[in-house]
Amino acid sequence: MAEQSPITPRAKDFPEWYQDVIRAADLAEPAHVIKGAMVIKPNGYAIWEKIQRELDTRFKATGHRNAYFPLFIPESFLKKEAEHVEGFSPELAVVTIGGGKELEERYVVRPTSETIIGHFFAKWIQTHRDLPMLINQWANVVRWEMRTRMFLRTSEFLWQEGHTAHATHEESLKETLQMLDVYADFAENVMAMPVVKGRKTLNEKFAGAVMSYCIEGMMQNGWALQAGTSHDLGQNFGKAFDVKFQTVEGKSEYVWQTSWGVSTRLIGGLIMTHSDDAGLICPPKLATYHVVIVPIFKNDAERAATTEVARRLAADLKAKDLTVVVDDRDERPGAKYFEWERKGACARIEIGPKDLEKNSFAFKRRDLEKKEFVPMSGGVAHVLAQMDAMQGDLLRRARAFRDAGTKRQDTWDGLKAQMEGPGGFGSAHWCGDGKCEAQVKEETKVTIRCIPLDNPQEAGACVRCGRPSQERVLFARSY
Amino acid sequence: MAEQSPITPRAKDFPEWYQDVIRAADLAEPAHVIKGAMVIKPNGYAIWEKIQRELDTRFKATGHRNAYFPLFIPESFLKKEAEHVEGFSPELAVVTIGGGKELEERYVVRPTSETIIGHFFAKWIQTHRDLPMLINQWANVVRWEMRTRMFLRTSEFLWQEGHTAHATHEESLKETLQMLDVYADFAENVMAMPVVKGRKTLNEKFAGAVMSYCIEGMMQNGWALQAGTSHDLGQNFGKAFDVKFQTVEGKSEYVWQTSWGVSTRLIGGLIMTHSDDAGLICPPKLATYHVVIVPIFKNDAERAATTEVARRLAADLKAKDLTVVVDDRDERPGAKYFEWERKGACARIEIGPKDLEKNSFAFKRRDLEKKEFVPMSGGVAHVLAQMDAMQGDLLRRARAFRDAGTKRQDTWDGLKAQMEGPGGFGSAHWCGDGKCEAQVKEETKVTIRCIPLDNPQEAGACVRCGRPSQERVLFARSY
Repeated sequence: MAEQSPITPRAKDFPEWYQDVIRAADLAEPAHVIKGAMVIKPNGYAIWEKIQRELDTRFKATGHRNAYFPLFIPESFLKKEAEHVEGFSPELAVVTIGGGKELEERYVVRPTSETIIGHFFAKWIQTHRDLPMLINQWANVVRWEMRTRMFLRTSEFLWQEGHTAHATHEESLKETLQMLDVYADFAENVMAMPVVKGRKTLNEKFAGAVMSYCIEGMMQNGWALQAGTSHDLGQNFGKAFDVKFQTVEGKSEYVWQTSWGVSTRLIGGLIMTHSDDAGLICPPKLATYHVVIVPIFKNDAERAATTEVARRLAADLKAKDLTVVVDDRDERPGAKYFEWERKGACARIEIGPKDLEKNSFAFKRRDLEKKEFVPMSGGVAHVLAQMDAMQGDLLRRARAFRDAGTKRQDTWDGLKAQMEGPGGFGSAHWCGDGKCEAQVKEETKVTIRCIPLDNPQEAGACVRCGRPSQERVLFARSY
Repeated sequence: MAEQSPITPRAKDFPEWYQDVIRAADLAEPAHVIKGAMVIKPNGYAIWEKIQRELDTRFKATGHRNAYFPLFIPESFLKKEAEHVEGFSPELAVVTIGGGKELEERYVVRPTSETIIGHFFAKWIQTHRDLPMLINQWANVVRWEMRTRMFLRTSEFLWQEGHTAHATHEESLKETLQMLDVYADFAENVMAMPVVKGRKTLNEKFAGAVMSYCIEGMMQNGWALQAGTSHDLGQNFGKAFDVKFQTVEGKSEYVWQTSWGVSTRLIGGLIMTHSDDAGLICPPKLATYHVVIVPIFKNDAERAATTEVARRLAADLKAKDLTVVVDDRDERPGAKYFEWERKGACARIEIGPKDLEKNSFAFKRRDLEKKEFVPMSGGVAHVLAQMDAMQGDLLRRARAFRDAGTKRQDTWDGLKAQMEGPGGFGSAHWCGDGKCEAQVKEETKVTIRCIPLDNPQEAGACVRCGRPSQERVLFARSY
């Protein structure tokens, strides 16, 4: 068995804990030889595959089709949308040599694909009958980041980017909000990660969008994680790439576009929402390992007997679409428990000679302290029920944490004290002025994560400048 | 309905026909603005998704797990394996600028990942207990190609690359041949494309491999298509990247590696194996559209009646996992038939007022001329049976074509005449000398596609130089 270096406790050093959990669960490792890049190892990639399958099903159910656009984008394309090029220029990787020769026009490695897709939309869209155009792409993208953290911010990451074109702003806004709902539903019901749906401030919106919407989760250190974004692009890219269509009335108009994306960053959010000082905790819907069965034995006869029962039970559980490992290695049971807790197996089953006598097994869920003894006869049903229960419990626990960490703040001192102390979301009034927002960021590193969509209108005073305000926004430190 | 430009007949201009089929079925288009790149459109990407699902299931069933390695590779890595760098250098895209600055070490965009994966294998593999290591990656790769053809040869393409490490050469060779079998099984039983399994000559092997194995299909113009390769890498990359492990006996040895891949090129092979002058023909296991139902009507009452029955039948077929479109657009039925033939729908169903009276429908398979009238009562079963029959018929038809196009040639003149005439595979003796092989290529553009694995040993004389030979090889023009 490989040596198991300890996991730093969350309370001691949260960023260290995060790295330790990734290493202990063998999810990924920094590439080192390529600046800011990482390798996603099989245990981590298995989570991404499940995320992909769940999301892809939802995208198709809402009428989208997958396509694939080039990795390279002519540098001139980015310059066609002024805000877009300003936002992405500092983060670009540039190909200058191809086939041994200096290129006449340099290519950037896509940081996002609005421009190249805009170029093709202009070729594909002629009339209102070509609309809506509903495309999604699963791809890698590159953004040169100075400070990287595995999964959360890497120079290359995997993501999906939806790109759609519509005949009216009403339709494109509806699409933008629909996909935000798809993300929120996925985050809560698959990742068990509660999120706030909201609008970004103009300072924080996507470079080139009219308005950006987001889902924000709260991590266990009180920081916010932007887990997905959906952008109302208006006619900005339509105008930049001349994407016009003939309306029913025969007029020529620019299309209204959206784009929306989530990435391997979600895996970082998953880790920081659920895991503990013993390692990874993963909701059953995304877990790489559902059940580990450890046969307990002191001699070969016991080994044969317990392992046989373990294998039978494993087969029954696999038939229910659970991923099951029978860990019959020559190791102390305690060392196996320790390893599978680190790796985030949702549950552990122990089967020893005494369990065989009683025709039962010991069952322990990864997220609970107690160990139960379960009759073998109803064993499969019990495990399945506990998988469902765990999925629900993780969401409830995370929601309680998030709700407890969200505090109404009516004074600057109060907000500052929260942010310098436990963190979390500070719900406070803001005047709507970007300069005021920028000052807050400069002084405290705290940003406005979003203006929640379900915000009640409420008279108040900006927590920073005192000017009148109509609604509260969420402040937080963020990744 | 969009204007439908004609498809060039195969007999007139095969390469034109190929491009026309891709355009008519809306599978892809050249990117133009990025040298040699293409956009895979939704109809084409849907085929790729089905290919991925089928292969991924087979890879996992043989014990492989997916992972993801960086897109960028330090330029120095390629130079560690002498043959490898020589083979790939002319095809590289190089990133020299990142985040606005000239890079200290330039990165190449991966043309294949043996080197970067070798680097990580060296970190992950310590002892025999870490072996075998069985990894697969689904990814994009870039190879700067001078002459590109959609799907067959593009500067960027999508593929999977398996990379495995083993303790002995016996095991790694077994893996190499196992994956070749997986590819051959997939080609024949999913793509309905018969292939010859064989070894490459040393001139044609992968740069860095000890031996390359391949599957070769025969296209309708008589050219060969290398559809998949599986490489015995020996210890070449193990030595280049110092991937050592401790054996059971405690000795330190280099691992034995394999790599194997198939790409979006398969879609080109699919097209050129089955399609005809009317457009795409696709085996049901990979088809984007299984059944198109066209209601026939002359007035609103007929329209309502036929469309209702069409929708009910469509629902029943969809419940059997078929992809079904009810095409009730305001167009002439003939124009719809024409369009769906071009797009490769496996079958067409027509439902008119007379069919309603008889409680039946008209059914036409894309690959057959005849139209049948099928009672509605057994309609779903008939369609399902015909999908199976079509899958089998396409394979049989392609196999008959391939067998008829494979000719034993015992003289140089005979081989030349075949290659200058109908093409196909020329099965002929070869002395085994790479110089002789190179001369043939220079004079005729014909290459040795493979040395078939099931080759009988047979005394003969090299078709080019007359020296003695023990077995026949397959000569062909190729993509």
